[in-house]
Amino acid sequence: MTAENPDPRIVSDFLDDLITVIPAGGVGSRLWPLSQPHRPKFLLDLLGTGATLIQDTVARVSPLSERVMIVTGERHADAVGAQVPAVPAANLVTEPSPRDSMAAIALAAALIEQRWGTAVMASFAADHLIPDGEAFRATVREAARVARDGKVVVIGIEPTEPSTAFGYIEMGDPLSGEAREVAAFTEKPDAETAAGMLARGGYAWNAGMFVMRTDVLLGHLDRLQPTLAAGVREIAAAWDGPERADVVARVWSTLTKIAIDHAIAEPVAAEGGVAVVPGSFEWHDVGDFDSLAELSGAAGGTVAIGRDLPVATVAARGPLVVGGTKPVVVVGVDDAVVVESDEAILVTVRSAAQRVKDAAAALADT
Amino acid sequence: MTAENPDPRIVSDFLDDLITVIPAGGVGSRLWPLSQPHRPKFLLDLLGTGATLIQDTVARVSPLSERVMIVTGERHADAVGAQVPAVPAANLVTEPSPRDSMAAIALAAALIEQRWGTAVMASFAADHLIPDGEAFRATVREAARVARDGKVVVIGIEPTEPSTAFGYIEMGDPLSGEAREVAAFTEKPDAETAAGMLARGGYAWNAGMFVMRTDVLLGHLDRLQPTLAAGVREIAAAWDGPERADVVARVWSTLTKIAIDHAIAEPVAAEGGVAVVPGSFEWHDVGDFDSLAELSGAAGGTVAIGRDLPVATVAARGPLVVGGTKPVVVVGVDDAVVVESDEAILVTVRSAAQRVKDAAAALADT
Repeated sequence: MTAENPDPRIVSDFLDDLITVIPAGGVGSRLWPLSQPHRPKFLLDLLGTGATLIQDTVARVSPLSERVMIVTGERHADAVGAQVPAVPAANLVTEPSPRDSMAAIALAAALIEQRWGTAVMASFAADHLIPDGEAFRATVREAARVARDGKVVVIGIEPTEPSTAFGYIEMGDPLSGEAREVAAFTEKPDAETAAGMLARGGYAWNAGMFVMRTDVLLGHLDRLQPTLAAGVREIAAAWDGPERADVVARVWSTLTKIAIDHAIAEPVAAEGGVAVVPGSFEWHDVGDFDSLAELSGAAGGTVAIGRDLPVATVAARGPLVVGGTKPVVVVGVDDAVVVESDEAILVTVRSAAQRVKDAAAALADT
Repeated sequence: MTAENPDPRIVSDFLDDLITVIPAGGVGSRLWPLSQPHRPKFLLDLLGTGATLIQDTVARVSPLSERVMIVTGERHADAVGAQVPAVPAANLVTEPSPRDSMAAIALAAALIEQRWGTAVMASFAADHLIPDGEAFRATVREAARVARDGKVVVIGIEPTEPSTAFGYIEMGDPLSGEAREVAAFTEKPDAETAAGMLARGGYAWNAGMFVMRTDVLLGHLDRLQPTLAAGVREIAAAWDGPERADVVARVWSTLTKIAIDHAIAEPVAAEGGVAVVPGSFEWHDVGDFDSLAELSGAAGGTVAIGRDLPVATVAARGPLVVGGTKPVVVVGVDDAVVVESDEAILVTVRSAAQRVKDAAAALADT
């Protein structure tokens, strides 16, 4: 199968064969103490809506994609299985150790080919927030249409501010429909660079959302990361048989540890092989408590998540209080963040939200 | 008995007849949520030493004074009795409602005269902190010597800083020993006035410590607050008999609500009847969390009170953490104050310590 001669099954109704892969990794250490090594961000009901981020993610893709495959760490497999019982156990792919995103996504691609033949696969992080599922799915449908023709497609989020927290996609010449060439990927910019990109226009945030045919991905990988490609094919061949444990034990730790951005997106974009489909839906990675407060509250107001007991203030603007089993009063501290989990209490302010990533280590050092 | 002809028993060994009165009132609302209406400051082990402030106070006066009388609210009588079992139940004088310090101290004076005849009484708040008990008692002995001769004596604390939190005593002409006339009492000054007083010298902090003969106090009261004087004498006469409840119910609420400073100290000082004995011992009223942190910790270091679990910091100078059953991490907030009681969690900073008095009301308004 090549781009010139696509699988007719995909052409006839690719949505039937779209397979979503959800890499569920990353602790989310700036959300400590909610996030913990044994309870990473994707397992959290971060907004107190009653659904965890991975449950939201699965619910969001299910109308598009009958088959959902989740790739996660072995230690999280039981929790993931319990949270998303609709995903069959066979589709919970467990990693013995983190080998970065390329190994996870490539193993998923190889397993999909092994089990079901070539398909369009879409990969979305397990811990992002997208309120408008329908707008998201419309963009994925367009991305899948472009992917069918052999492009690696990245969904580019329309920037709403000159954020320095994300990489940017420089959009090039128009392709069919809404798709455009990717001229280049840029790393997270400084504030001045970000402001310049927003002023010039033609840039989108890179939210790590990739849509591509499994054969296209694995074909690029054969050229660009042959060891990794061979390794995941070997593991996939053994996955559903008696040799899985032996092969994984032998091969997994030899897989090149690299992000899909560096392994595929950047070099293939340089060859003209990556398209971007712009998505204008609201998207948040909710990476820290400042984002969570921004997302959850009216400006200057109190935000309480995951708790029923009152929060009061004296001369204190807009606290975010998460969890806990007692009333909380904040006095004289603006933008306070007070988070209580079973394990610990965090006290900080929104402007220090990035430093929370060092909290667990500071506690371990006491 | 007059100043010219003192009770020979007092002259012979006044320490045997010194009776200490401890007015135990005041919630200490700036120490919320540790302090609560049902658990006022004097019942707290504020420094985590294993002794509450009233226990400390009783222990401090016991070597001076065989008889200790505590005046407290009816709702606190059981807790006080449990904390200081060495004080006989008959010496726990309960007020049906707060009528300010003059009513409490005057009732104690009248009860002392009723039960044991004229004595020197010394009155000390139940919720102050004095680390050096021996130095304190030496000052009280000197004050009692001066009181024996008919003066109302106030112990004046040597100022260590130009505090705006206390009233000041302006010291006048020398009397015998270390005693001096009180030229005047001044209200809590502003910062400039306080600095001026410290620079000029001759001022002491008024810590509300009064030593005087019961007959001297009640004599002044007969002249200056006759209704109050008659009321406490009537209550005292009935106190140890069957009519107590009826008399208290009828008379208590008619007693003038006034502080001893305004009822006695200021007008009698204007007549030349008040002496001050300087005390150079360390004294703290520990009125708020800023004082508690100052008192408990090395500058810039973490202070943990009433808890065993760790406190860690990231980019956060000198937090004070009181109580609680979980590790606490403070990130990016200098001088944070985190207090957990059974009832609530307070998050503030030392510079806002005064505003904590509004916390309970803010919570009640939620």
